[in-house]
Amino acid sequence: MAPHREGSDASLEAMVAQVEKHPISSILIIIAMQTEALPVVNKFQLIENPHSPFPKGVPWIHYHGTYKDIIINLVWPGKDLTFGVDSVGTISASLVTYASIQALQPDLVINAGTAGGFKEKGAGIGDVFLVSHVAFHDRRIPIPVFDLYGVGLRQTYSTPNLLKALNLKTGKLSTGDSLDMSPHDEASIAANDATVKDMEGAAVAYVAELLKVPAIFVKAVTDIVDGEKPTAEEFLQNLAAVTATLEELVTQVIDFISGKCLPEL
Amino acid sequence: MAPHREGSDASLEAMVAQVEKHPISSILIIIAMQTEALPVVNKFQLIENPHSPFPKGVPWIHYHGTYKDIIINLVWPGKDLTFGVDSVGTISASLVTYASIQALQPDLVINAGTAGGFKEKGAGIGDVFLVSHVAFHDRRIPIPVFDLYGVGLRQTYSTPNLLKALNLKTGKLSTGDSLDMSPHDEASIAANDATVKDMEGAAVAYVAELLKVPAIFVKAVTDIVDGEKPTAEEFLQNLAAVTATLEELVTQVIDFISGKCLPEL
Repeated sequence: MAPHREGSDASLEAMVAQVEKHPISSILIIIAMQTEALPVVNKFQLIENPHSPFPKGVPWIHYHGTYKDIIINLVWPGKDLTFGVDSVGTISASLVTYASIQALQPDLVINAGTAGGFKEKGAGIGDVFLVSHVAFHDRRIPIPVFDLYGVGLRQTYSTPNLLKALNLKTGKLSTGDSLDMSPHDEASIAANDATVKDMEGAAVAYVAELLKVPAIFVKAVTDIVDGEKPTAEEFLQNLAAVTATLEELVTQVIDFISGKCLPEL
Repeated sequence: MAPHREGSDASLEAMVAQVEKHPISSILIIIAMQTEALPVVNKFQLIENPHSPFPKGVPWIHYHGTYKDIIINLVWPGKDLTFGVDSVGTISASLVTYASIQALQPDLVINAGTAGGFKEKGAGIGDVFLVSHVAFHDRRIPIPVFDLYGVGLRQTYSTPNLLKALNLKTGKLSTGDSLDMSPHDEASIAANDATVKDMEGAAVAYVAELLKVPAIFVKAVTDIVDGEKPTAEEFLQNLAAVTATLEELVTQVIDFISGKCLPEL
């Protein structure tokens, strides 16, 4: 994994050099589901931007506002135009991350959302994780080097002070486009040493790195993947309660960020 | 699937209304791998755009040129900045399709590339398919309606005259981010009734529909998925020969398109 570390270090240097001298003034929060997004929108009294920065016709919604001198942008990919459900998964997450960074030039990206957790790795319902690494578990390309590209292991932007101050759990996140987990996914997730599993994180990380913006990942556990209940049932059962926890944690993260420069996180 | 058909019809109307009165003047060819792209670049004597329309730092390469009064744009997502291999798969394909349509405003998108074929459905090595439908096979979301969103079945832009004139094979394409095929993928691909399998098509289709640009898919078979040889080995063995066939077919497609309006395809 040497090439990856080199790449990350170079990106990190670029990020830090760019913004280390002034407090964080603008953040971009990417949230995949409306149920996850609205508590945060309400908490910070964000309003939907009537002059969307996105192309005509796309369902992506830009909310914005100011809180403690920070411009808060929250982008939710909206309801799929064909099926009417939240535009979850890596493709929508990649597109909105790309378009939002281009339009809004944030200092920091925060991908917040719900996730499945592995109890064997210490996750419980309602736990909130600040993710240390992301990787994909459903991009198997068994050709040398392409295999590593498929997994796409990345270290997230390191925020040791934030982690300590908020007393958050930390762990690795594995991303895939399925809510369930096939035996192949399970093996890849184990290889990724993941504690939490979602459908967007590694895609957001990929695009943020591409555009050289630091990104952090706040994931709240709605369901125990290695437990006895079916994932979809447990996910839907806990979604509302866990999104309230997620909103609280996002607020704490932003309160901590306020007034600080990136290297102080 | 009624909501999908309605969505497609509305998009189709918008497309047709917009461009039916003038011959196609600009096309965008999306090709994932350099080995697939270079024969087409050379054939049409395209040159790399020294003023890239893409953000600084991304590896995406824009080639362009003019052939028979058509502006030909070819975009290849380039080599991954971390791993140095072609940026294959749905995330890169989505991003370059989005960024290229925004920057280049093409009349038509052509996603060309290699694919795995199912001999049981009539595919052989070197066959070229003009795809009738696309869907995903690795986005399993077992919640009502989300399941359909995950599969994302879409009809491609219909080109009956092109299909007839070039005497191409036609069939459905199933897209996923793995080169191999797990049992879960296999079941989904069967449910998608796919004859060919790739790693980009349905993602390109999703973005093209989002931005209301008609898209067609030309896929040449490098390996037989339901055959006896391992996919990766057979893929690498046939890649060079099949890309030559692909270039020939892309040329025939563009020759046919020349001077015609969209509804004449």
